[in-house]
Amino acid sequence: MTNRITDLFGIRYPIIQAGMVWCSGWELASAVSNAGGLGLLGAGSMHPEILKEHILKCQSRTKKPFGVNVPLMYPQLEEIMQIIIDLNVPIVFTSAGSPKIWTSSLQNHGIKVAHVVSSLKFARKSEEAGVDAVVAEGFEAGGHNGREETTTFCLLPMVSQAISIPLIAAGGIGSGRAMLAAMALGAEAVQIGSRFAVSTESSAHENFKNSIIKAEEGGTELMLKKITPVRLLKNKFYEEVKAAEIQGATKDTLKELLGKGRAKKGIFEGDLAEGELEIGQVSAMIEKSAPASDIFKEIWNEYVFEGKKLCGLFAE
Amino acid sequence: MTNRITDLFGIRYPIIQAGMVWCSGWELASAVSNAGGLGLLGAGSMHPEILKEHILKCQSRTKKPFGVNVPLMYPQLEEIMQIIIDLNVPIVFTSAGSPKIWTSSLQNHGIKVAHVVSSLKFARKSEEAGVDAVVAEGFEAGGHNGREETTTFCLLPMVSQAISIPLIAAGGIGSGRAMLAAMALGAEAVQIGSRFAVSTESSAHENFKNSIIKAEEGGTELMLKKITPVRLLKNKFYEEVKAAEIQGATKDTLKELLGKGRAKKGIFEGDLAEGELEIGQVSAMIEKSAPASDIFKEIWNEYVFEGKKLCGLFAE
Repeated sequence: MTNRITDLFGIRYPIIQAGMVWCSGWELASAVSNAGGLGLLGAGSMHPEILKEHILKCQSRTKKPFGVNVPLMYPQLEEIMQIIIDLNVPIVFTSAGSPKIWTSSLQNHGIKVAHVVSSLKFARKSEEAGVDAVVAEGFEAGGHNGREETTTFCLLPMVSQAISIPLIAAGGIGSGRAMLAAMALGAEAVQIGSRFAVSTESSAHENFKNSIIKAEEGGTELMLKKITPVRLLKNKFYEEVKAAEIQGATKDTLKELLGKGRAKKGIFEGDLAEGELEIGQVSAMIEKSAPASDIFKEIWNEYVFEGKKLCGLFAE
Repeated sequence: MTNRITDLFGIRYPIIQAGMVWCSGWELASAVSNAGGLGLLGAGSMHPEILKEHILKCQSRTKKPFGVNVPLMYPQLEEIMQIIIDLNVPIVFTSAGSPKIWTSSLQNHGIKVAHVVSSLKFARKSEEAGVDAVVAEGFEAGGHNGREETTTFCLLPMVSQAISIPLIAAGGIGSGRAMLAAMALGAEAVQIGSRFAVSTESSAHENFKNSIIKAEEGGTELMLKKITPVRLLKNKFYEEVKAAEIQGATKDTLKELLGKGRAKKGIFEGDLAEGELEIGQVSAMIEKSAPASDIFKEIWNEYVFEGKKLCGLFAE
């Protein structure tokens, strides 16, 4: 089962583990790449020296391709990109910024570039900027998100119709059945975050992993829309933001309330009260932690099983 | 291609046209039923006498099954239900209220009952109440919606896993490809609103139909969450609500701003500035008006085409 994405990245299965702050270090990324998918290091929560260490460890643990997710508003962006180039990382996923500036210089070093968007408009701009693939991420995704609030169900068909480069689906995907639906909507691969955030190899704190497993329907909400929209698990910090927003809090008030380092506090240090707990709506369906390779196999096997079942409807 | 839904309602294709205020009268419902799907009259915008007239006209135009969508907070509910029973309408879709009170009395008259929900919790309660099928409607749907903001992509697999009665998908579905994705996520039929709202037979005003066709990504937003969440097309009225909400307007202020009769003003009378224009996110993909039977055929043919294409991935 090869397609343009498996060919582009040199992977066996079109399943990508999302680069997630404080979750996806070398342990998770190498485990997913070894399983036959594409593991991504999340540079967003790494100092340049730390990223270097993670890339080297990842290379020592897998001979298979892996990549780095780089948020383009990263303060030491040049340094980060130089490390990626110097260490011959073959794949970069960029997000949160314009793909115009870095795409061609990375590609000149033989690096494949995918860009993450949450709207049709930015999917088109990404293709114009020359990226190799687009990740379209719906409203249900964890962490930072778009202002249009377009859901995966509406976003994927719009983007797949508008671009000719391959499309990777993200947001709301944590099972083989959801992967099948994403492929039906025009994707050629899926990017999965929340499900891998609870994996054994995720560097997230156990408290955070447990809170994801406990989360039920309605357990997350897209908050802080006046600053940068972000989907959060409901906790004490969320309640404070909610109360402020109901009262009509200004940008400045919200920025002050957010402060600095809250994602680290919650996700990495396990402070479930004060932390900023970034996770997707699909957390409501996540029932357990498991090694990344088990999660990977379960998703793939379910995808194939459900695919064959669905095909029964179309048998002549 | 029969399944539990086609058997339950006695229809040929598992495609249901949503009951929509000010859009779905006898012309639309009979056209969809004649095309082999299930047409629904939208009782929410009809006085009892008007509903009676629509049912009789619908019966004179089609020998096939059709139904009525009844919002359970309707003021003259008893009268409405009596008309439905007296005129032998075979199918009722209830929404916006508890399915406990009416389900069994309708079923005692041989009427099949489906209930519309926007959450797993209410899907379970609907099954407990004995309904024959559940419609699960995601965050992207037009009009009134749930507080959990669960998207179609996340809602369908949760509900299909939790209930044993048949599931009908709604929200974000306006094409055969989206229908295929919904089936992959566990639905046995789809309920389509926005796409039929622009059909020739829809009783919506031409101004409203044109504004749906013009709508682009980000053209709708879920508003009035402090009262009852409702997805609206962005217009002058929306801007007023938005400005009030940003300032932290109270429930009372919002109720006053909403006033009465705004949906009629916008959808039926075509006042695009002052009207409450209820429509789904999928409006961004709607490009033209057409007779309901053409829309119906296009969706079905695309569903079969995309289904067979997808099956190519799973051929041994």
